Amino acid sequence: MKTTLRTHTCGELNASNINQKVTLCGWIQKIRNLGGMTFIDLRDRYGITQLAFNAETNPELCKQIEPFGREWVIQVTGTVAERYSKNKNIPTGDIEILAKSINVLNESITPPFTIEDESDGGDEIRMKYRYLDLRRNPVKNNLLFRHKLSIAIRNYMNNIGFVEIETPMLVSSTPEGARDFVVPSRLSHGEFYALPQSPQTFKQLLMVAGFDRYFQIVKCFRDEDLRADRQPEFTQIDCEMSFVSQEDILQTFEGLIKYIFKETKGMDIGTIERITWHDAMKYYGSDKPDARFGMRFVELNDVLQHRDFKVFNEAELVVGIVAKGCAHYSRKQIDSLTEFVKRPQVGATGLVHIQCQEGGNYKSSVDKFYNQEDLAAVAKKCGAEEGDLILIMAGPRLKTQKQLCELRLEMGRQLGLRKAGEYKLLWVVDFPLLEWDEETQRYYAMHHPFTAPKPEHEAMLETHPGEVNANAYDLVINGTEVGGGSIRIHDKNLQKRMFKALGFSEEEAQKQFGFLMNAFQYGAPPHGGLAFGFDRMCSVLSDADSIRDFIAFPKNNAARDMMLNAPTPISDAQLKELGLK
Amino acid sequence: MKTTLRTHTCGELNASNINQKVTLCGWIQKIRNLGGMTFIDLRDRYGITQLAFNAETNPELCKQIEPFGREWVIQVTGTVAERYSKNKNIPTGDIEILAKSINVLNESITPPFTIEDESDGGDEIRMKYRYLDLRRNPVKNNLLFRHKLSIAIRNYMNNIGFVEIETPMLVSSTPEGARDFVVPSRLSHGEFYALPQSPQTFKQLLMVAGFDRYFQIVKCFRDEDLRADRQPEFTQIDCEMSFVSQEDILQTFEGLIKYIFKETKGMDIGTIERITWHDAMKYYGSDKPDARFGMRFVELNDVLQHRDFKVFNEAELVVGIVAKGCAHYSRKQIDSLTEFVKRPQVGATGLVHIQCQEGGNYKSSVDKFYNQEDLAAVAKKCGAEEGDLILIMAGPRLKTQKQLCELRLEMGRQLGLRKAGEYKLLWVVDFPLLEWDEETQRYYAMHHPFTAPKPEHEAMLETHPGEVNANAYDLVINGTEVGGGSIRIHDKNLQKRMFKALGFSEEEAQKQFGFLMNAFQYGAPPHGGLAFGFDRMCSVLSDADSIRDFIAFPKNNAARDMMLNAPTPISDAQLKELGLK
Repeated sequence: MKTTLRTHTCGELNASNINQKVTLCGWIQKIRNLGGMTFIDLRDRYGITQLAFNAETNPELCKQIEPFGREWVIQVTGTVAERYSKNKNIPTGDIEILAKSINVLNESITPPFTIEDESDGGDEIRMKYRYLDLRRNPVKNNLLFRHKLSIAIRNYMNNIGFVEIETPMLVSSTPEGARDFVVPSRLSHGEFYALPQSPQTFKQLLMVAGFDRYFQIVKCFRDEDLRADRQPEFTQIDCEMSFVSQEDILQTFEGLIKYIFKETKGMDIGTIERITWHDAMKYYGSDKPDARFGMRFVELNDVLQHRDFKVFNEAELVVGIVAKGCAHYSRKQIDSLTEFVKRPQVGATGLVHIQCQEGGNYKSSVDKFYNQEDLAAVAKKCGAEEGDLILIMAGPRLKTQKQLCELRLEMGRQLGLRKAGEYKLLWVVDFPLLEWDEETQRYYAMHHPFTAPKPEHEAMLETHPGEVNANAYDLVINGTEVGGGSIRIHDKNLQKRMFKALGFSEEEAQKQFGFLMNAFQYGAPPHGGLAFGFDRMCSVLSDADSIRDFIAFPKNNAARDMMLNAPTPISDAQLKELGLK
Repeated sequence: MKTTLRTHTCGELNASNINQKVTLCGWIQKIRNLGGMTFIDLRDRYGITQLAFNAETNPELCKQIEPFGREWVIQVTGTVAERYSKNKNIPTGDIEILAKSINVLNESITPPFTIEDESDGGDEIRMKYRYLDLRRNPVKNNLLFRHKLSIAIRNYMNNIGFVEIETPMLVSSTPEGARDFVVPSRLSHGEFYALPQSPQTFKQLLMVAGFDRYFQIVKCFRDEDLRADRQPEFTQIDCEMSFVSQEDILQTFEGLIKYIFKETKGMDIGTIERITWHDAMKYYGSDKPDARFGMRFVELNDVLQHRDFKVFNEAELVVGIVAKGCAHYSRKQIDSLTEFVKRPQVGATGLVHIQCQEGGNYKSSVDKFYNQEDLAAVAKKCGAEEGDLILIMAGPRLKTQKQLCELRLEMGRQLGLRKAGEYKLLWVVDFPLLEWDEETQRYYAMHHPFTAPKPEHEAMLETHPGEVNANAYDLVINGTEVGGGSIRIHDKNLQKRMFKALGFSEEEAQKQFGFLMNAFQYGAPPHGGLAFGFDRMCSVLSDADSIRDFIAFPKNNAARDMMLNAPTPISDAQLKELGLK
């Protein structure tokens, strides 16, 4: 990294460089004036190097640096010397630079927050001054990690024959799916491009074109109301292969994921377990289970619906989990769990517990209805032992599963079972093809309208659409969906039947996806693929909660760039040129 | 590339595989029924393999394939056998597959044009059915080359410490520069994002943030009226470095370019020559000279303005080139050159020629005004020898230079001096900082408003703005500008002076670039960079004329995607949500 302005970076000098004359450039992290000696920590992307100024031997220089402040940019020339008190925490900690001359490259006014690992700046101000936030190690390291990951992915994909092909950003709007961002056309007033929600149709066309193995790390766009951790523009690792079965795809990308873990974290993750969507719902109440810990659901209808407890008897599902070693939970602790499930975000009406006490006694919130034998039977069914706490919920199946899922995750958190640095990967397979929507009274594609039904279920597409399973799969890491995909329909007629099952008229299907269906007339190969959320993958691999920390210039929850203050009004001349009001 | 559906690709079997049982998948390129034997050429991305069907030994199979047609997708199982008549032109030419069974994966209707290296399809139909056009070898190979180039670039940049950082696509509109594509905001009616014309300001902010070395291969957007070879969305290799001089940047990217040539073409290009903008204009009449051939301009004012020829005497510039060995050009050939320069695209009023004939005689279209000694003096000044043709133009300096540049390129073409496969690279340096625009009566930045003047010219920014040179540079290959950049202004006050020289009021400057100028208050390092046009680089390295052939799904000259038929009208509901009419 030697340039005209520096001989070394602030991260590379060590004991082997002692007595060398060097020139460094960087930002002033800290100035410590100890009377006779002044020390400056000089920072750049690569590290921190200590500069030393001796008031006795070099008074002019000490005078020169007096006005210096945090974040000034300086160029310093001096000699590398062994440090009196070494700093074992940084690679340059054995040495310091005895400064001979200094050149101020730029001054800085006082930054609005501290440039430290833990900053005193709030979220909003750090977003507004993102270029200063990016100077902080945690944020900087996130972007360096993202880069490292993208290089690793590209090289792996290239080595196994995948070709990166750029697909267009100015495409056509498709009402099916999420809301599009649109771009008014200046040359055709009243017409709009759309920004792609994903390159889905393009990658399928590339398979029709015979590219066999395609990938792309690519920006995608969704104009959705932003939840805590969504961004209007996000990055996908988009992949597609021809002449493959689902198994080929799972194997191929299991290879990629293993490589990523090895390359970026030095971890060997072994074979990725698989679970059907049905089992994921049954045992975890979620299609993206955090399987770092067990606490699997146990269905209890058969052992709890034989007494007079109406709540259980009338429930479609009675289901419990075992919190190991939590029988000692106080009344207050249990009340707070009940409050947790009653929060509107979870929405349960109540929580039943059974404490498996020493000596084989059971204490329960439903003691009135169930005797010790009943409770022992429940404990046996759950595999609960002395000292365990059984937590039970009841109600409509899907709703109750989702509520218990929330409780399970909360218990996992309380018990420290969701360990940072531990990774549990799952392929969730055999998704249903379609999902019924009560509001619009129609089926929606669970993945997207191009997903192929399992061949053995194809015949049910018209008769029992809700029971058709898809050749679709998700990759889940620690309870987060990191990617997903499917085998696609490559047969024109099956695609027509699928559109029909989704309630599209022939005209609608032709209007929205005509170019794809036309393409399928000219020899479409069997194909399938998947897409990973790249921002999400970065955050999951870093045990971080938010994807925003892995995006250089993210938008806030109102889809606004706080630094640019975008979006902004445009000029009347621009509006007129676009034929807009 | 083995998958569940195939054991091998159509490009990998050879004599070493003879007697192996294999399964291939692919498209039918050609069927040749020779009576007793039928041959099918099966094609995939990797190559072509011949399938053989014997009517005598396998009549059922021959019956099965009867209805097959071009571009059907089939899966075939058979045994690899030595071919009777080998095809030395393809890697699989020694073998064929004795087919045992066939499975039709998909049928195809007859494609609208032939899928051959030279297709019978016109431009428009090939764009509409781009997925079929992409099956053709030349187009496919262009995209494979593009991929290979992008991998090489990323790895080189990564190895020398550059970090790829994604910058946002939804940014704010900046009236300075080309026209923006805009994206209406649904959450803030009347406000718009803009799609970036380049990540210029973001990469500068990343330098302020301390990333030191940034690059990105990134889509950029310009809503311009499209010339023959422009696209509304295009891809840049965008780069920026901190603590550097111009020399550091030229050296760094000369390394990249050398690596690219070595890696993708096996060529050692040596040191890249440099030429000042002033000399490029003087000797080639262009800031992007095709230096594969000489034919440099020779200024002839001093040897041609002393007689009574008014056209020359009144011209600001009289300038000529020597076409070696073209003294024999016929009247018709010379007339056609005159017509060439009189075309509106060139716009000259005439062309003077001197034929340097055998025996030291000169024949000229201006014999009336100049005697043999005059013409000999011109020839001497031009370095013309017996058998050469001197072509001379006159008029206002810049205009005449540009016209003669066109003629020079045309002569180079006619004489076969612009050889495909030969590469001449140039760094054009010392560009003027500003360019006067007669129409709007103001200066414009020749590169962009962030380009730094040469330090020794800084003082002239207010007094002689037109004479200030910039620390700016372009990379030119064979007469095409492939990239360009500059050292940036990192000083807030100098930036203010620059905006003033461009006629911006303080308010305008603050409104358009306030976030950047604010950022410069917090310790901006000296920095600079450049951007290469990636589509253009692909085409230049492939000796291709058009960038469109290196884009998977390009738009036509009306910025329309012929395949998607985008842009399209959107629904009233969508318009209403966006607050648009």
